[in-house]
Amino acid sequence: MQRALELARHGTGSVEPNPAVGSVIVDDHLQLIGEGYHQQCGGPHAEIHALQMAGDQSQGKTIYVTLEPCCHQGKTGPCSQALIRAGIKKAVIAMRDPAPHVDGGGIEELKHAGIQVDVGLLESEAQALVRPFVKRVTEGLPWIHAKWAMTLDGKIATRTGHSQWISNPRSRERVHELRGRMDGIMVGQKTATADDPLLTARPPGKRIPARIVIDSQARLSIQSQLVQTIAEAPVIVVAHTSASQEKIIQLEQAGVEVLQIPNTAGEIESQPDLRLCMQELARREMTNILIEGGGSLLGSCFDQRLIDEVHVFIAPKIIGGAEAVTPIAGRGLDMIPELHNLREYQVQQLDSDLYVCGRLEYPA
Amino acid sequence: MQRALELARHGTGSVEPNPAVGSVIVDDHLQLIGEGYHQQCGGPHAEIHALQMAGDQSQGKTIYVTLEPCCHQGKTGPCSQALIRAGIKKAVIAMRDPAPHVDGGGIEELKHAGIQVDVGLLESEAQALVRPFVKRVTEGLPWIHAKWAMTLDGKIATRTGHSQWISNPRSRERVHELRGRMDGIMVGQKTATADDPLLTARPPGKRIPARIVIDSQARLSIQSQLVQTIAEAPVIVVAHTSASQEKIIQLEQAGVEVLQIPNTAGEIESQPDLRLCMQELARREMTNILIEGGGSLLGSCFDQRLIDEVHVFIAPKIIGGAEAVTPIAGRGLDMIPELHNLREYQVQQLDSDLYVCGRLEYPA
Repeated sequence: MQRALELARHGTGSVEPNPAVGSVIVDDHLQLIGEGYHQQCGGPHAEIHALQMAGDQSQGKTIYVTLEPCCHQGKTGPCSQALIRAGIKKAVIAMRDPAPHVDGGGIEELKHAGIQVDVGLLESEAQALVRPFVKRVTEGLPWIHAKWAMTLDGKIATRTGHSQWISNPRSRERVHELRGRMDGIMVGQKTATADDPLLTARPPGKRIPARIVIDSQARLSIQSQLVQTIAEAPVIVVAHTSASQEKIIQLEQAGVEVLQIPNTAGEIESQPDLRLCMQELARREMTNILIEGGGSLLGSCFDQRLIDEVHVFIAPKIIGGAEAVTPIAGRGLDMIPELHNLREYQVQQLDSDLYVCGRLEYPA
Repeated sequence: MQRALELARHGTGSVEPNPAVGSVIVDDHLQLIGEGYHQQCGGPHAEIHALQMAGDQSQGKTIYVTLEPCCHQGKTGPCSQALIRAGIKKAVIAMRDPAPHVDGGGIEELKHAGIQVDVGLLESEAQALVRPFVKRVTEGLPWIHAKWAMTLDGKIATRTGHSQWISNPRSRERVHELRGRMDGIMVGQKTATADDPLLTARPPGKRIPARIVIDSQARLSIQSQLVQTIAEAPVIVVAHTSASQEKIIQLEQAGVEVLQIPNTAGEIESQPDLRLCMQELARREMTNILIEGGGSLLGSCFDQRLIDEVHVFIAPKIIGGAEAVTPIAGRGLDMIPELHNLREYQVQQLDSDLYVCGRLEYPA
């Protein structure tokens, strides 16, 4: 199963909106006779790759797979039936697939065909691998990453708004790697205006993320780098329903998609509802969204518990300033949570910077 | 010299206001015949310890010492003369002592007596060891440490002012260790009121630091833990010259020392001039001062380039909030400095927290 998990990881970044899955077929002496991973959405699933490699040897053998085999006809045929046809004797499955169209159905089919099924080996490792997928299919929301680069005194810009560069070149390289496995890179309107960013992955990664600006009044300039490079990657402006039609038409004529989203629940009525916005992105099968700031957008997302994972680059600089910009604004918590609320986090030194990455858990 | 530096380090924390110094005496075959370090202000210097251990063997031998031997009669006699009397042949000195009453005079005396003198071996290591001492004797200011515990989004308290606890128990232990080698622990009036801290080292360290509150109008409550524990460690209130005499008398009757300091140069006229305050502390031979916050005091100190070293505890928590408190307020810089401005910094993981410690360099 370790090997299957390792294989699965190769698919991350290119396989979405499908889950990353790996599979290994062994004989009774645990000799490997087939392996594979799900490489790309629309391509064969991990089990099929493994069966193909095993050829006619799979009869009576054991398959290890990191996620329950599918039982539905999607872009490819159901894996459960393929395993049955190949004469697999035993299936060791790390975790059940919680997607509504599977949800135990694959396991049922295998059992029904007389295959011995074990579920739960290295389950938490397998779950870590498909969290973004699981969130999308069960909650209808993308997995939302937040990234910021701050000084050692917790600022993302000076009091004058100057922010280039807080992080060092190696940290910025890491950000580009991160972008290259996202479905969307999101910023707020103020950041889009102040920094005039490109928001592309340079060099390109496995996917080309859409560039998304939360921009209530559709004020993004046609002259911005984002709009001017529309041929390189799509730009989506998320505006409130009250935004000026004239501005929307201008943006649309320049090739920008404008998504008008109301705000029924939020405190600030003229801003698009961020949860509705994220739901729309998930509906489009966007699995991973990276929010790169600014502080207000990240603050609103944090307040609405929308952030799943954080990527923090800490530079050994101090800039001070009561009016300097802080990474997460918004309302914020009233009390310090008793336990640390970042789980499974990692720290890495990138030259002079520190990179901290972890999954966020919200206090109950 | 490595050994001498190692010995010198043992004195740190107890030797101040004197510099930490280590010394080793070897024969021509580099066999150790004496060693020692300056343990305590008023006690024998490192060279004397080493000479005592060597006894009558020091004749014709080589001494390694991390700082130029003194040439003045202080609490103890001049080391230069002791080395000459002992018949030392060669002195290898890591660095010249920049204190006005030495400043090359010790080296001169040795040379004059025909001793071969080499200066500069492992000089930067030796300098790192005595930076606080050198700052005090050359600039008339203590070495000022700043400490804060912040969340991963750069906050030292929530928007409601709640801050206990951001850091974990192991980080707090480290803070107590730090306190135990300081001459003073300083906080602002707001922090003293909000947190009602003790500011003692628990368990006690090598020294008992004075507890210093920057408190323009001498508002510190007689009921505060600081005043109530005056028997454990001195409390100094640094007030502006405009503070109410009544309050000052109350504090003084409770055993608090009130230091009234004007503000001739500062922007906020009713606050004591922090540089003057630090000069007064240095005049009292305080070598290391730790400022524990809050953000306003640290901001003012940072703006005046008074902070020499930072100790940052970063907890894997996110609390958000545009109005949450940030570690260093004040005015702050206008532009991001191009190069990182923390030098020789170290990162350590203290359970779930990160501890970053480094020396601050100010952009020119």
